[in-house]
Amino acid sequence: MKIIIINGPNLNLLGTREPETYGNKSFEDYFADLQFKFREVELSYFQSNIEGELIDQLQQANKDFDGIILNAAAYTHTSVGIGDAIKAIETPVVEVHISNTFSRESFRHTSYVSPNAKGVIIGFGLQSYDLAIHSFIGE
Amino acid sequence: MKIIIINGPNLNLLGTREPETYGNKSFEDYFADLQFKFREVELSYFQSNIEGELIDQLQQANKDFDGIILNAAAYTHTSVGIGDAIKAIETPVVEVHISNTFSRESFRHTSYVSPNAKGVIIGFGLQSYDLAIHSFIGE
Amino acid sequence: MKIIIINGPNLNLLGTREPETYGNKSFEDYFADLQFKFREVELSYFQSNIEGELIDQLQQANKDFDGIILNAAAYTHTSVGIGDAIKAIETPVVEVHISNTFSRESFRHTSYVSPNAKGVIIGFGLQSYDLAIHSFIGE
Amino acid sequence: MKIIIINGPNLNLLGTREPETYGNKSFEDYFADLQFKFREVELSYFQSNIEGELIDQLQQANKDFDGIILNAAAYTHTSVGIGDAIKAIETPVVEVHISNTFSRESFRHTSYVSPNAKGVIIGFGLQSYDLAIHSFIGE
Amino acid sequence: MKIIIINGPNLNLLGTREPETYGNKSFEDYFADLQFKFREVELSYFQSNIEGELIDQLQQANKDFDGIILNAAAYTHTSVGIGDAIKAIETPVVEVHISNTFSRESFRHTSYVSPNAKGVIIGFGLQSYDLAIHSFIGE
Amino acid sequence: MKIIIINGPNLNLLGTREPETYGNKSFEDYFADLQFKFREVELSYFQSNIEGELIDQLQQANKDFDGIILNAAAYTHTSVGIGDAIKAIETPVVEVHISNTFSRESFRHTSYVSPNAKGVIIGFGLQSYDLAIHSFIGE
Amino acid sequence: MKIIIINGPNLNLLGTREPETYGNKSFEDYFADLQFKFREVELSYFQSNIEGELIDQLQQANKDFDGIILNAAAYTHTSVGIGDAIKAIETPVVEVHISNTFSRESFRHTSYVSPNAKGVIIGFGLQSYDLAIHSFIGE
Amino acid sequence: MKIIIINGPNLNLLGTREPETYGNKSFEDYFADLQFKFREVELSYFQSNIEGELIDQLQQANKDFDGIILNAAAYTHTSVGIGDAIKAIETPVVEVHISNTFSRESFRHTSYVSPNAKGVIIGFGLQSYDLAIHSFIGE
Amino acid sequence: MKIIIINGPNLNLLGTREPETYGNKSFEDYFADLQFKFREVELSYFQSNIEGELIDQLQQANKDFDGIILNAAAYTHTSVGIGDAIKAIETPVVEVHISNTFSRESFRHTSYVSPNAKGVIIGFGLQSYDLAIHSFIGE
Amino acid sequence: MKIIIINGPNLNLLGTREPETYGNKSFEDYFADLQFKFREVELSYFQSNIEGELIDQLQQANKDFDGIILNAAAYTHTSVGIGDAIKAIETPVVEVHISNTFSRESFRHTSYVSPNAKGVIIGFGLQSYDLAIHSFIGE
Amino acid sequence: MKIIIINGPNLNLLGTREPETYGNKSFEDYFADLQFKFREVELSYFQSNIEGELIDQLQQANKDFDGIILNAAAYTHTSVGIGDAIKAIETPVVEVHISNTFSRESFRHTSYVSPNAKGVIIGFGLQSYDLAIHSFIGE
Amino acid sequence: MKIIIINGPNLNLLGTREPETYGNKSFEDYFADLQFKFREVELSYFQSNIEGELIDQLQQANKDFDGIILNAAAYTHTSVGIGDAIKAIETPVVEVHISNTFSRESFRHTSYVSPNAKGVIIGFGLQSYDLAIHSFIGE
Repeated sequence: MKIIIINGPNLNLLGTREPETYGNKSFEDYFADLQFKFREVELSYFQSNIEGELIDQLQQANKDFDGIILNAAAYTHTSVGIGDAIKAIETPVVEVHISNTFSRESFRHTSYVSPNAKGVIIGFGLQSYDLAIHSFIGE
Repeated sequence: MKIIIINGPNLNLLGTREPETYGNKSFEDYFADLQFKFREVELSYFQSNIEGELIDQLQQANKDFDGIILNAAAYTHTSVGIGDAIKAIETPVVEVHISNTFSRESFRHTSYVSPNAKGVIIGFGLQSYDLAIHSFIGE
Repeated sequence: MKIIIINGPNLNLLGTREPETYGNKSFEDYFADLQFKFREVELSYFQSNIEGELIDQLQQANKDFDGIILNAAAYTHTSVGIGDAIKAIETPVVEVHISNTFSRESFRHTSYVSPNAKGVIIGFGLQSYDLAIHSFIGE
Repeated sequence: MKIIIINGPNLNLLGTREPETYGNKSFEDYFADLQFKFREVELSYFQSNIEGELIDQLQQANKDFDGIILNAAAYTHTSVGIGDAIKAIETPVVEVHISNTFSRESFRHTSYVSPNAKGVIIGFGLQSYDLAIHSFIGE
Repeated sequence: MKIIIINGPNLNLLGTREPETYGNKSFEDYFADLQFKFREVELSYFQSNIEGELIDQLQQANKDFDGIILNAAAYTHTSVGIGDAIKAIETPVVEVHISNTFSRESFRHTSYVSPNAKGVIIGFGLQSYDLAIHSFIGE
Repeated sequence: MKIIIINGPNLNLLGTREPETYGNKSFEDYFADLQFKFREVELSYFQSNIEGELIDQLQQANKDFDGIILNAAAYTHTSVGIGDAIKAIETPVVEVHISNTFSRESFRHTSYVSPNAKGVIIGFGLQSYDLAIHSFIGE
Repeated sequence: MKIIIINGPNLNLLGTREPETYGNKSFEDYFADLQFKFREVELSYFQSNIEGELIDQLQQANKDFDGIILNAAAYTHTSVGIGDAIKAIETPVVEVHISNTFSRESFRHTSYVSPNAKGVIIGFGLQSYDLAIHSFIGE
Repeated sequence: MKIIIINGPNLNLLGTREPETYGNKSFEDYFADLQFKFREVELSYFQSNIEGELIDQLQQANKDFDGIILNAAAYTHTSVGIGDAIKAIETPVVEVHISNTFSRESFRHTSYVSPNAKGVIIGFGLQSYDLAIHSFIGE
Repeated sequence: MKIIIINGPNLNLLGTREPETYGNKSFEDYFADLQFKFREVELSYFQSNIEGELIDQLQQANKDFDGIILNAAAYTHTSVGIGDAIKAIETPVVEVHISNTFSRESFRHTSYVSPNAKGVIIGFGLQSYDLAIHSFIGE
Repeated sequence: MKIIIINGPNLNLLGTREPETYGNKSFEDYFADLQFKFREVELSYFQSNIEGELIDQLQQANKDFDGIILNAAAYTHTSVGIGDAIKAIETPVVEVHISNTFSRESFRHTSYVSPNAKGVIIGFGLQSYDLAIHSFIGE
Repeated sequence: MKIIIINGPNLNLLGTREPETYGNKSFEDYFADLQFKFREVELSYFQSNIEGELIDQLQQANKDFDGIILNAAAYTHTSVGIGDAIKAIETPVVEVHISNTFSRESFRHTSYVSPNAKGVIIGFGLQSYDLAIHSFIGE
Repeated sequence: MKIIIINGPNLNLLGTREPETYGNKSFEDYFADLQFKFREVELSYFQSNIEGELIDQLQQANKDFDGIILNAAAYTHTSVGIGDAIKAIETPVVEVHISNTFSRESFRHTSYVSPNAKGVIIGFGLQSYDLAIHSFIGE
């Protein structure tokens, strides 16, 4: 099984940005942990701050992967284009968020990703990605 | 580890109600599967159609359990009281939904549970409960 | 043909509560009149001030009755759960209101019952129930 | 007893227009059925696509009839003028709709007719007119 | 003079729940203080987490008491039914809140109780109840 | 100087309709008074319940009159077309209303006529027309 | 007959301020014209930029005058207090505006004065005051 | 191929009304040009200021024409009835507007015609009709 | 203990203004009653119709008094400045209203005073002031 | 004449994405058809999923082309920047959409492109581009 | 060059009011610093808590100064009258705020001053005034 | 001291785009002026039309500069991602705008940049950048 994690804007700062909200572990370190834990899964990782590159990657992932884990970060709340891309492809997309977006500013309470996602996992810190993988491998 | 699943209104109809949305397995059958799968966890189950009984149970669970998995169903979107109960207790609450509430009516897009929950899992069918247990046992 | 009338909160006060709005006849007296008038129909009656008990009764009525006449009163405007129950069952539900809710406060102009009801009858005083029975027996 | 049925725009297409929503019986045929069924009532019928002609007819009916059954169709949701006409006359007006307007587009959820009507009957198909006559003759 | 204090959801947790907002005294202890202070008044106390039981109690209190002090807590902001009950009974109802609801979330700024209450007392901590009794005995 | 008074829907009922709001004098009687009082002005009068006929008349009046006094009644609040007609013609239009629309329902607080009118006169009863003529003759 | 004209903020600049909107005649000059034209009326004039002084003057005018002509200018759209003052006094108040407020910014489309005024005259330039006097003397 | 152009209110003034917005050519002149240019199409033309007559014509055109080009003008933004008529008939309707409605007042940004139209052409001046004919003949 | 009562616009009319809403006792008379009843408290009184003078007085009272009872009347609903003044000073402010603002116009349902007040007392008539003093002296 | 077609996000998937909405022809195939049909026009084509690259291209096209046909797809509804670019350049821009955006989700009913476009063509499938070229060549 | 700084309500408390938001330096002290720093400018200072006095001062400053620096504080968000005064005068007005109003309550995000100001400077603490002077002297 | 100016979409057109709004000087020319004027500051400049590249640059600037001057142009009003980047970095960001955004379209009145900025400078033309540098060097 091949799964790709696609991370959106500012998630490259993880570990240094607002640690009280996002924790102080870089995503690269966490990704290595995930690879070790889920050795039976072929995991890939992509990050970009550019909305259109996330759309490009979603389209590409449609051909290469069995599942997509998407944390669109800020674009979650404004990107009709990412929502359209998810709707346009067939590979299922699981939406994840590290922080509890519902206990933050009201503009973070809407998502163009959610209505088109297979499922949504919010607020478990980095464990959100872990649960998303579980949702694909069904264990 | 002791975990209770608390289900809200109309979830007692699971398996017969709108099977295209909720599937055709009764929650009792699914609960037995969960108990078998997670034998190391002591799982309990409670269901009520009455908002205040769900509040009662949340308050009681605070004393007896290490984790609460709450599917408040219709009350999710209207019950300030359930939100207050979650805020008032210390046992962490994970919010789950079977269907993807974000692809349904707009009144299902708001939740009084979410801002006070440890995390939120939406749209994976009955697997949502499975992932919620994973979130507690951390595997 | 078996029909149940389900009345929501404060309708047990009928005859004493705001007589200029609701009239001064108790529902029990009126129900006896209905039974006499529609002798070919097996009529039952249930009232509760508790939202969840109305949901319980709707679920139960699904098994025992051919038609449901529901005056959810105040819960009409706030209860997602009652709306869900109507959608979950197969017995048709006719929504009735005694007063003209559209000439009262604006929060009474929305209904979670209506979109899922077979039909809606509003503002005829107690005659609303009479017309609802007519709608079932088709005369 | 003299009752007039006043139908608004596009109801002249009944039987051919969107049969899945409105059925496939023309109103003329149905009107003949009503006349046969309620022989003790003197029934009249008027239809126009023009808002102002419906206002004219409401004003005229005030002199000639004991009751008015009004399906203002599309004008229900936009016509302050029809609402004003109902308020200006003394003959009671019962509002009817064939389809369940509350399960359709949100702009059909408001009515300038309802606050001024004697009562409202929605969603019973053509039977809505039948029930409206019942509401006048009280049987 | 007979006065009943009716408390809504989660107020049974007083003293343990969010002490920075609600203080750390249980309502039972405070109630004993009130009884001692206002010995000339016959004070009763009722609490429930169930909306419909609060409605039941308001209806019952109408027969047995001269005044009602109601802290509907979370139901304040969502319960049309409690508002209707207050309107339906004759015994005057004074609305109280322990915390300043206006300095909290915006959904706590609306009240279905207030428009029908004799008066409203908000934000004085437990002293709010004390002032409510004063409002009845007029000293 | 030639001035036409154009009255909209239901104003033909003046004198019989809601006399507490509109007075009990028919417009025809009042119009004769106006003709007598303003003998130096050539006054005409037109009334219709049909929105499009009011538009027709506004277009026609552009050729035949020096001033238009328009009480569009209910269409004031909904007719983009009447507003467009006023904007399209050159003869100045003074908007009048008999009742104080601002102390009535909120849907009467907006006007498609006002932004395009030479001036607006509201709430003086039938005297509103009198003042409108004054505004044209400048005395 | 004694009438006072009360002008609100920035109207003391009339004649110099935005002449394309308000004309280039000072109000003092215009007031002299009015006194000459309506010699049978005892006219007074008051202007202030301070909301509370306008309230003071309205209260005082209640004792000394038969009619008040109020152009509250900017306070029209924000002053609950001026609206309350008009409601509290018995002398009738006619609201006037020089410019057509309905063809300007949307915040000028609401008025706390209008619902409590005897009548409203808008957009006739300085002639608005002239018409307001006409409304009092009835000629 | 038979195509009818149906024009709504005030379009009979084309050429004289607001020439900076709508140009100074009458529609009759332009229609002759269209007939000459598209000789292979049988073109008809209808205009009315009355909403209901536009509905009548849409219903009639359903029987007589292969395509309808509709510029509902002001009724575009308010007429549920015209929208219903389009939905009720089978002949495809292409919506056109001469001016760019999206660069004008916000109430012109909504259309009851658009959701039911085959396509929408806005802002090309009179050329909008030309393009609409092209859309039918497919060249 | 030194307490000042600060009253806002139009409260100087108390006793004459809308007696059905505010009673027919002047505030001066009532103030004398309060002084007699609460002889152990040093009571002062200030009233102004000018928003800025109320702000001045709140700032001054911060130095001279132990408690402030504020009925900002109409300014309650619009004055950011009074709210800021309360937040800027240290002497606690209790907000009072004579009438039940929640059963009046919707613009009276918001308050810039409440979020910054020690507590809020609404709707008890003049007794509201009495209860506010009680809240300070704690009896 | 030189015309460029600029397509926004996800339009590179045309032919595979949601064929029931967008058809199953790739844009490249369709573009070849257009080039063949309009041989007298020099047609170019650009597509990007990146908002800023569309802005870059609009700026560049200003120098190189006589007309721009823009289908900004998802960015239509959210991109202030694309709207600004259109306003900043002189080459006229015609907005096209393949599907009828007005019969889809409400967030697709607003456009930052339309107010600045020469014209708008919506809902004709791929023919929308064909009509846009017609609008430029005027035949 | 003559410049006046006009400060609105509660700014006289600077240095004592909410020091965490506004700093603990009195404006008088800061003003002396400014006079020393910008010796080539003739600086004046005015403060009032009364809206109308700020309007008076703006009108007066129009005659006496080359530039106005206005911190209208709370009136920024509610005063149509101050906005009108700025529009009515010719001397340019620079709006300043000490705190970042955009990171505070939402009612502080709107300003009647800004649309009419020469420029806006927000959130630099007392340095905002310093920058405003720079904007006038152009260094 | 090292300061970078980051400009968003369409600002590369400065000098040619809408000169009546933005002036006719290119930013490069103006930047040279700034470098000459503020020789003691090490100034850098970056411009992109791509939202994500602006985020990249903000993240990079966090390491290399002491201050950031950001004119996010169109992205100001829609980019949650840029707002998040500012919050995530430690180098202070001053928001500038050339035109007075508050006197333009309403969608330009909200900013995701402002709440996270050190300060905001709007409407001074190119001088806005000059003032922003002043704010950093404190002179």
